[in-house]
Amino acid sequence: MNRSNQITAEAIRSGDRRALARAITLVESARSDHRAAALALLSGLGRDREALRIGLSGTPGVGKSTFIEAFGMMLVEAGLRVAVLAVDPSSARSGGSILGDKTRMERLSRHPLAFIRPSPSQAQMGGVARRSREAVALCEAAGFDVILIETVGVGQSETMVAGLCDLFILLMAPAGGDELQGVKRGIMEIADLILVNKADGALRETATRTQADYAGALRLLRRRPQDPEGFPKALCVSAATGDGLDLAWVEMQALADWRQAEGHWAARRAEQAQEAFVEEVRQGLLAVLTHEPARGLMARFGEEVLSGQSSAEAAAAEMLRLLGRGP
Amino acid sequence: MNRSNQITAEAIRSGDRRALARAITLVESARSDHRAAALALLSGLGRDREALRIGLSGTPGVGKSTFIEAFGMMLVEAGLRVAVLAVDPSSARSGGSILGDKTRMERLSRHPLAFIRPSPSQAQMGGVARRSREAVALCEAAGFDVILIETVGVGQSETMVAGLCDLFILLMAPAGGDELQGVKRGIMEIADLILVNKADGALRETATRTQADYAGALRLLRRRPQDPEGFPKALCVSAATGDGLDLAWVEMQALADWRQAEGHWAARRAEQAQEAFVEEVRQGLLAVLTHEPARGLMARFGEEVLSGQSSAEAAAAEMLRLLGRGP
Repeated sequence: MNRSNQITAEAIRSGDRRALARAITLVESARSDHRAAALALLSGLGRDREALRIGLSGTPGVGKSTFIEAFGMMLVEAGLRVAVLAVDPSSARSGGSILGDKTRMERLSRHPLAFIRPSPSQAQMGGVARRSREAVALCEAAGFDVILIETVGVGQSETMVAGLCDLFILLMAPAGGDELQGVKRGIMEIADLILVNKADGALRETATRTQADYAGALRLLRRRPQDPEGFPKALCVSAATGDGLDLAWVEMQALADWRQAEGHWAARRAEQAQEAFVEEVRQGLLAVLTHEPARGLMARFGEEVLSGQSSAEAAAAEMLRLLGRGP
Repeated sequence: MNRSNQITAEAIRSGDRRALARAITLVESARSDHRAAALALLSGLGRDREALRIGLSGTPGVGKSTFIEAFGMMLVEAGLRVAVLAVDPSSARSGGSILGDKTRMERLSRHPLAFIRPSPSQAQMGGVARRSREAVALCEAAGFDVILIETVGVGQSETMVAGLCDLFILLMAPAGGDELQGVKRGIMEIADLILVNKADGALRETATRTQADYAGALRLLRRRPQDPEGFPKALCVSAATGDGLDLAWVEMQALADWRQAEGHWAARRAEQAQEAFVEEVRQGLLAVLTHEPARGLMARFGEEVLSGQSSAEAAAAEMLRLLGRGP
């Protein structure tokens, strides 16, 4: 990250891909000088451009990379500029998935209208949320039409990605009744569109049944104000053959258009900004732990807990008292 | 939660199941009087009893409930007392899985030596970690021999559960090479045992191949100091037929015995206590937001961000400055 001060908002807005990549690296950095440069850059980007931000989730094996490759190629071939960002807090411990995302999206990664950014090597959830939010803002300022924000599996990361996107897509595999039960209601409730992938060859029939099962399950959920009649919806697609991708895109656009017309789009973005504010405050409060005297106290009490001299609860209470933050 | 002050440490230690259930409800409560009662109860439990704490994870559809039912029945029929706790932060938004866990473990839930506690209806990740840690401590004091801590899918919750248990088991479905790639290295690295379920009938061969694939993948990982020769290990099981469950239990015991003999067991519990301490401190620092003046400021700045008057970043910086926690 040399000469990070030379990444300008103008370079980002002109669509300079190298500047965009460097800017994302900058917002990912924990160094305080990088952080200051990142904030200055972000504040100069302007807010006049809006991409369609699509969150995409699905458990491993469901074919997310194949889907993004096929769906993204369809969009870029229609002349749209597409950015793909990966969000993966589960890689916190070790540094990402075994295979990088780019190698699994060969055609898309080489297309001039596409920009793919694999998930960075490590961060805590709070950091992931901020960084992803800022990477989205950078891609938006860079003039992308569609930003695909990919996340893995179930859990916290989906709620976080839902807080970044305009539409949330859940990619599912064809499956029996047993597996349907495993889908958490929480995930169903944030999904705008469920796409049952692999609806081709021997799995076509199972996929159709699965799609009907999900459609039935979605009808059991309470209607949300941000949905027009018929949404959320379940569809079959095949990333391998391309079947259904065009229809899925038509549905996404219809939903986005309706939400824009009805004011839900702007309302959702406003709420997301408010949630980001709360998260920034939380992270700001925790920042005290990275400085003295808290740093030293953490180390000392941490040792006492490790050696069994104090319990976790007692040490935490004493440390908070010393910081003047006790109950 | 009437008469919560009447749950005594003696009642828990005597194995009173009603007292245990009420105590877990107490530690799940956010009310400050309940919290005080919970802390008093926990501090009186003593630390002389140790259960084997087994974390269990696997994506939806892999057969976790069936596995717990079959594995748990095998243990209780051998005379062991078994507690099952579910940890599911993804239910934060809406209140748990579509089906409760208990209804999917019919025999085990009725057995006198078993205690099953479904995941509670809602909480933030910090709250989930604390509550799960305290529920484990209660079950341990109540004299259970084995505590199964079940979590769902990939992501944060697995790291959290790994911070609560002595052994971490990953339950997987028979699958092709594609799906193997989807397993995150981070998850592989916390697993002590990978069990490929559904190794019966038509899937037996696929399961055997999958098990060999995981065994190969595990061999690629660096040897951890807390593992004897041959661990982590991948095995085939069938929760439906019971095949392989006895061998899996033998391996778990062998691993636990080795770690106990070599000092890794005690070291891991000490580290976990230290991590719990850090988490308690973090939660304590954030508690300021639930009181005035922070509460009022949050509301006011939140409104400004919602209405577009301020950006999330600018409002957060100003709020932290007013709280005297600015940079």
